[in-house]
Amino acid sequence: MSDLLVVGSVALDSVKTPFGAVQEILGGSATYFSYAASFFSPVQLVAVVGEDFPQAHLDLLKRRDVDLTGLQVAKGRTFRWAGEYGYDLNEAKTLDTQLNVFADFRPDLPESYRQPSFLFLANIDPDLQWEILHQVERPRLVAMDTMNFWINGKRQALERILSEADALIINDGEARQLTQEPNLVKAAEAVLAFGPQLVVIKRGEYGAVLFAHGNFFFAPAFPLAAVLDPTGAGDSFAGGFMGALARDGGMDEAGLRRAVVYGSVMASFAVEDFSLRRFTRLRPEEIEERFRAFQEMVTFQ
Amino acid sequence: MSDLLVVGSVALDSVKTPFGAVQEILGGSATYFSYAASFFSPVQLVAVVGEDFPQAHLDLLKRRDVDLTGLQVAKGRTFRWAGEYGYDLNEAKTLDTQLNVFADFRPDLPESYRQPSFLFLANIDPDLQWEILHQVERPRLVAMDTMNFWINGKRQALERILSEADALIINDGEARQLTQEPNLVKAAEAVLAFGPQLVVIKRGEYGAVLFAHGNFFFAPAFPLAAVLDPTGAGDSFAGGFMGALARDGGMDEAGLRRAVVYGSVMASFAVEDFSLRRFTRLRPEEIEERFRAFQEMVTFQ
Repeated sequence: MSDLLVVGSVALDSVKTPFGAVQEILGGSATYFSYAASFFSPVQLVAVVGEDFPQAHLDLLKRRDVDLTGLQVAKGRTFRWAGEYGYDLNEAKTLDTQLNVFADFRPDLPESYRQPSFLFLANIDPDLQWEILHQVERPRLVAMDTMNFWINGKRQALERILSEADALIINDGEARQLTQEPNLVKAAEAVLAFGPQLVVIKRGEYGAVLFAHGNFFFAPAFPLAAVLDPTGAGDSFAGGFMGALARDGGMDEAGLRRAVVYGSVMASFAVEDFSLRRFTRLRPEEIEERFRAFQEMVTFQ
Repeated sequence: MSDLLVVGSVALDSVKTPFGAVQEILGGSATYFSYAASFFSPVQLVAVVGEDFPQAHLDLLKRRDVDLTGLQVAKGRTFRWAGEYGYDLNEAKTLDTQLNVFADFRPDLPESYRQPSFLFLANIDPDLQWEILHQVERPRLVAMDTMNFWINGKRQALERILSEADALIINDGEARQLTQEPNLVKAAEAVLAFGPQLVVIKRGEYGAVLFAHGNFFFAPAFPLAAVLDPTGAGDSFAGGFMGALARDGGMDEAGLRRAVVYGSVMASFAVEDFSLRRFTRLRPEEIEERFRAFQEMVTFQ
């Protein structure tokens, strides 16, 4: 077992999809990541919540052995996000963002967090990502996410942290925006030119692409008759991906491919219900069953 | 070897992409289909051209042993299409359509065409598709394509021919439009409710999905650094798919999956140059190489 550290958001989400609406439920990139990864590896979480954050949510993560030593509880209100999805569920329309305690978040890692083997810098301010990276001994693998807001608004800081990262795990549209390349092959190569040795491009309902060691690997998205809420799919993917790497240790081509599929498996469970509800009733054997179902869906002779 | 019959358009295309522009080059659904399929199986073509159609284009198809007995040469001008693609190459903007001799096309199949084992009804008026189907002895497999124009304008005729077809090979967006289902699983099931036993959904740069015998099969699109012109990709896919079935004969799950990959292989070659240029210099061993490259890109343990 290797140590897996994540920094990101822990949030209260209000989400509306054509299949339902929920108010102030547990969300956030670090939350989805940790819960998904916890099926594979112990996880240490770095984030901040306000004094209003429900104890029940913390208990939920603790029951999965997620280490919350690095979760600050600050004066004020927890980060809140509200969004809505249309029938095609492809893109969230953000209705409201309240940074609250997240606005002044300055992580100071506990001593026990400073030697992770695997580090995931979820989608936060690239300057914060850089600070975190420089508070730890160099991990075996540093992976990161980002979004249009930072690509447009903090390009220089983003390029600085990218130059030190090993892996970028990013949405399709944002990969194109970052690289100014509509072509997948050129976009993937352009990402590597920023520094990373590998890139995973998340394509929502079209699956995920790994580009590493000069090779492409394609995994489909699992075909689900009912997607209730796509929120957290990308972070659950990253949790499954990094968790599988931390569990299995191998970062050769075969290990990376398996990790992409485990990422896709976890993303497919995340969207089957709102918040982390599907995860809370997920049995480990279901993960392996779905892994084999992915294999069955792409195999030909 | 089984007989493969296609009905569709033979056209003169004018295409503009960010990588070049061509005027009145060889195009049309039956053309791309036949040329792609000719690498796998003899093909019989049904279409109409005008008196202005260049002999050189006919010679090109004849050299691939495409049977042109069913190609009518009618008084008037050949069908012309003009379109333009933006940088993302996802969707053609039609600039001009001149039906010309295609407007009055009433196929009357030669006697030698009336017992095909495999029939492909390319994207034409669903009433014409129905007429063709009823001029032949029931083939082993009847596959068809269609488009938004017929889904909107000739819904009833489309449903009539669909109820007699075995396979629908259709674009992503058009599958959603036909079924009113944004969800892939439900859209695939809704297509089968119209009559076909199998559906292939073409997703452009995201590959193709087969739904048959209750199972999904996903093939990616081949990652190309340079896509010069996406025109004809879908018909080349259908040509590779039907050609492979006609060559190999097996329509079990394994045979259908191989056919989807051969379809994807042929589509990937089609887009590497304008018109049929890439096909005219394509060697059979390149097809097998790319088939194996597809396998390498999706395999994991």
